[in-house]
Amino acid sequence: MTETLHVGHGILPQLGALMRAARLDGAAHVISDTSVLPLHGDAVLDALRAAEFPAAAYAVPAGEPSKSLAQASALYDWLVDRRCERRDVVVALGGGVVGDLAGFVAATFLRGLALVQVPTTLVGQVDSAIGGKVAVNHPRAKNLIGAFHQPRLIVADTALLSTLPPRELRSGWAEVVKTAFILDAALLDLLERHAAALASLPPDLTIEVVERCARHKLAVVAEDERDEGRRIILNYGHTIGHALEAATAYGTLLHGEAVAVGMVGAARLAQRLGLCDRAHVARHERALAAFGLPTRAPAVGYEALRAAMALDKKGRGARIRWVLLADVADVRVADDVPDEAVRATIGEVAG
Amino acid sequence: MTETLHVGHGILPQLGALMRAARLDGAAHVISDTSVLPLHGDAVLDALRAAEFPAAAYAVPAGEPSKSLAQASALYDWLVDRRCERRDVVVALGGGVVGDLAGFVAATFLRGLALVQVPTTLVGQVDSAIGGKVAVNHPRAKNLIGAFHQPRLIVADTALLSTLPPRELRSGWAEVVKTAFILDAALLDLLERHAAALASLPPDLTIEVVERCARHKLAVVAEDERDEGRRIILNYGHTIGHALEAATAYGTLLHGEAVAVGMVGAARLAQRLGLCDRAHVARHERALAAFGLPTRAPAVGYEALRAAMALDKKGRGARIRWVLLADVADVRVADDVPDEAVRATIGEVAG
Repeated sequence: MTETLHVGHGILPQLGALMRAARLDGAAHVISDTSVLPLHGDAVLDALRAAEFPAAAYAVPAGEPSKSLAQASALYDWLVDRRCERRDVVVALGGGVVGDLAGFVAATFLRGLALVQVPTTLVGQVDSAIGGKVAVNHPRAKNLIGAFHQPRLIVADTALLSTLPPRELRSGWAEVVKTAFILDAALLDLLERHAAALASLPPDLTIEVVERCARHKLAVVAEDERDEGRRIILNYGHTIGHALEAATAYGTLLHGEAVAVGMVGAARLAQRLGLCDRAHVARHERALAAFGLPTRAPAVGYEALRAAMALDKKGRGARIRWVLLADVADVRVADDVPDEAVRATIGEVAG
Repeated sequence: MTETLHVGHGILPQLGALMRAARLDGAAHVISDTSVLPLHGDAVLDALRAAEFPAAAYAVPAGEPSKSLAQASALYDWLVDRRCERRDVVVALGGGVVGDLAGFVAATFLRGLALVQVPTTLVGQVDSAIGGKVAVNHPRAKNLIGAFHQPRLIVADTALLSTLPPRELRSGWAEVVKTAFILDAALLDLLERHAAALASLPPDLTIEVVERCARHKLAVVAEDERDEGRRIILNYGHTIGHALEAATAYGTLLHGEAVAVGMVGAARLAQRLGLCDRAHVARHERALAAFGLPTRAPAVGYEALRAAMALDKKGRGARIRWVLLADVADVRVADDVPDEAVRATIGEVAG
C-alpha cells in the first residue's frame, strides 16, 4: 500500500518520485500563489520534470480573496488551455487558501482529478492539507461551496517552514497545541519542554511534531471522513475562534490566533461547567503563550460573537455543539451549555 | 433498506412521504426551470408541505445555457437567503439541465446536501437523473465542471411525461432503445412490438419500460460509480452522438436524436469490422424509426466529427474507445478501430 503522507526536511526534490510511487500519471498542474510560487515553484517544477511529469504552474494572488468561485473559474480556464485530462494531477503548493482552492478545482474538474497537497505552512502541514475538506468562500460565508476530496498524496517538507513570516508560523502552532490537548498528552509534554527550541525549527524535532499531528488528523478523518461524528473534536477552540474571525471581519486575528483564544475560552467554559480545574485552564494559557500566541482577544463583546456563532454552519441556530476537555485527551461534546456560561466566558477572553 | 427509485403513474403527490421514508429531514429547496415549474411546481410544493417539509422553489431559465457556473452561483445565493443547512434537501424538478445543475449545487453547497431527483422528462427518468453524474458546462466543454453525487431518492412519475413537447419525448426514447440494445433483449422485443402504442404513454406499459431502464442504469452504476469501467457501456451511440451535437453547436439535433444517429453509426461500424451482420444494423434503424427518431444526420462531414471526438473528454487525443455490439446485449469495447472504418461509417450516417 502506498503511503499517503510523507514528512521530512528537504524532501521537496523527491516530489515527482513520490508521485510515481503513488501511481500517479498524466500531466501535473501546479496551483500556487504569488507569495509561494517565487520561493518554491522552480524546485517543484524541477522535481516533477525529473520524474517526467509534464508540468506547469499557475499563481493566484496571495490571500483569502482568492478562495472564490471567480478564481476557481479562472483555474478551470487554465486547465482547459492546458488540455487537462481525467488522469492528470493537480498539485496544490501553498497554505490553506491554495490547498482549499486547488482542492476544490481538483474535486470538480472533469468530476474529479487526483490531488497532491504540498503544504508550505505549518497549519497546512499539520491540519488543513489533510482530510479532504476543500472549498471556496461565498461572499456571505466561508467555505460555503466545497466538497470532500481526499488527496492522493501529502508531501510536507518541513524545510519550507523557515520561509514563513514569523506571525504566520506562530499562528500555525495553535493547531499543533490543539492536537496535543485533544489527543496526545505526550506530545503536549514535548511541546511544553521544547517550545523555545521549536521556534527555530530544528529539523528532527520539527519533523516529529509535524508528523505526529498529521497522523492524528489522518486517523480522525479515517474514522469520520464526512464530518458526521468524531471529526468534531478537531473543532476544539474553533467555536469561539471562527466567531472571533467573523466578528472582526477576518482583519484582526490570524486563524491560529483566533483558535488560540478560542481554546482558552473553551477551557474556561469547561472550568465554569465543573469539567476541569483552574490549573487546566492555566496550562492552556502557558502552552499557547510559550509559542507567542494570544490568550485574550480584543473586546469584541458577547452579542457580536453570539451572532457569529449562530451563523456558523454547524447547527441550525438553536444549539451550538461545544467541544470541551475534562482533561488532556479527554474530550466531551456538549450541546446544552447555558448561554450565561458562554456570556461570562466571552467576557473573560474577548470582553 | 430504503428504496432509492420509485416509478409510478401519478405518484408525485407522494413525494414528501417518500422523502420521509428515505429518512430525509430539514427544509426542501426545489430547483426547477421556467418551463417545468409552472406545470408541476404547485403539486410538488403541496406534496412537500403535506409531509411537513418547509419548502420553496427557484426556477432557472429553461434551456442548456442555465447549466453554468453563473447560474450555480445564483442558486448558492438563494440557498444562503433561505438559510439552507447541512441536513436540508435539494429537490431537482425538471429534465437533464435541471438535474445536472441542481445536482452540482447540492454536491457543493456546504460540501454536500441530500439530493432528490424528480425527473420530468423521459430521458431524465430512464437515464440522466440516475447515476450521480452532476455538472455544469464550461464555455469550451460540456459537463467540464462537476462531481459524482448520488441522489438519495429518485421519484419518476410517468404521468408527467404527457406534458412533454412531442419532439422532446421522442428524443427520450433513444436512451430507452439504447438500454434495450446494450442490456435487455426482452425489452427490445417489447419496444418493437409496442412502439406505436407507447407513443400515447399507456400507464402500465410506460411504467414497465421506464422502471426496467432505470433499474438497468442503477445496476450498472452500482458496479462502477466513478465511471472507470463497466459504465462505459452506457456510452453506446454517444461517441458519434456527442460529436454530432458539438459539431452542430448543439443547435440542430436534440441529444436523443444525436444518440439515435450515433447508435446507427456504431452498428454500421460494428458491421464494417465484422462484428455483426447487416440485419443487426437494420434492426437498429427500424427500432429507432418506430419511435420517430432519425437514423441519419445532416451532412456534418468526417473532419468536423473527428475533431469533436478528439476533444471529447474520454481520451487523450490518441485513441477513441468505441462501444460496439456484436449482438443485442453483447457489448465490445474497442480502442483500435481504424480511422478509415470510422471515416466510411460517418460518410454513411452524416456524410
